[in-house]
Amino acid sequence: MSFSPSIEQLTQALRHLPGVGPKTAQRMTFHLLERDRKKGLILANAIKEALEKVGHCKRCRTFSETEVCNICANDKRNNELLCIVETPADILAIEQASIYRGFYFVLMGHLSPIDGIGPSDIGLDILKTRLEADDIKEIILATNHTVEGEATAYYISEMAKPFHIKMTRIAHGVPLGGELEYVDSRTLAEAITNRKSIEN
Amino acid sequence: MSFSPSIEQLTQALRHLPGVGPKTAQRMTFHLLERDRKKGLILANAIKEALEKVGHCKRCRTFSETEVCNICANDKRNNELLCIVETPADILAIEQASIYRGFYFVLMGHLSPIDGIGPSDIGLDILKTRLEADDIKEIILATNHTVEGEATAYYISEMAKPFHIKMTRIAHGVPLGGELEYVDSRTLAEAITNRKSIEN
Repeated sequence: MSFSPSIEQLTQALRHLPGVGPKTAQRMTFHLLERDRKKGLILANAIKEALEKVGHCKRCRTFSETEVCNICANDKRNNELLCIVETPADILAIEQASIYRGFYFVLMGHLSPIDGIGPSDIGLDILKTRLEADDIKEIILATNHTVEGEATAYYISEMAKPFHIKMTRIAHGVPLGGELEYVDSRTLAEAITNRKSIEN
Repeated sequence: MSFSPSIEQLTQALRHLPGVGPKTAQRMTFHLLERDRKKGLILANAIKEALEKVGHCKRCRTFSETEVCNICANDKRNNELLCIVETPADILAIEQASIYRGFYFVLMGHLSPIDGIGPSDIGLDILKTRLEADDIKEIILATNHTVEGEATAYYISEMAKPFHIKMTRIAHGVPLGGELEYVDSRTLAEAITNRKSIEN
């Protein structure tokens, strides 16, 4: 049972959004039609505009409306540091921590031979050109701590070897405020294996 | 920190959807831009189309693309029964139970003097004209079991008194499969107050 084809169509289209199931999609549809018709139009236009305008920064591959993104265009940043992340959302997270002032490189994914995602799909050819041209002193590998993320980090470190650049990996362990009781056992195992000596 | 004005704008616009907070909106934005550009366009068009085409049925006030909705146009339904609900979603829920074959009337809300929502805002003038014109034998009040829903049901039953139509209210109590242990105490109190004698 459906009220009309275009309601059905909208409900189906909303299900393409991540985390939206059939009930949520129906609720969203009714919300847009019942209370928020103006905001619905704003949303439709915002989607179209973003899809038209937003491309990728040609230096770091993150989302950008301009050829080079805000961060890459900022000459006050430390050009000796390059942090490699999987997604633009990771940049936002690191920027929010406000401790890093170098540049980024976004893979827009990770190596995944099973899905046919190879080195050039995650922009490693662009990265290589950049390693050759730029004067980078340290690469911080901040890919996710998953099998694919680790494999990607390993691949990049191998690829960068000839350039004699210092390679680092972000630290993994118990998060701040994390009570040991509630930390999963793999994280805890890693935290114990990578324990640091205390200087006194 | 934001990558571009149109990303920011899209994230803000997605927050108008019910149940979408800042993090979810960001995830949706990145999802649309990263993987689902085609589906993003489909979504934008679906919103526009639904907003343009979908209006209200002139008989029952539910959402409809045509002047009279599918249900009201179905002459195989029992025209002696009228079920009054708050929203179009309630119709879907009742239709799914496939036990009711009468017609509906949708209030698109409930009486709420504090918010300035009076009888004509929930279509009670249209309902009255319909009670005068149609040969309705029973009205089933299926407004929500909230203070406003109950008040609205009471108001409608008072309004319909001169027409000498049988008025009923859907039953409230412990849901099927509901374990008493987990049923809230107000529902349980109601279920005990409204207990039915078992015929043997």
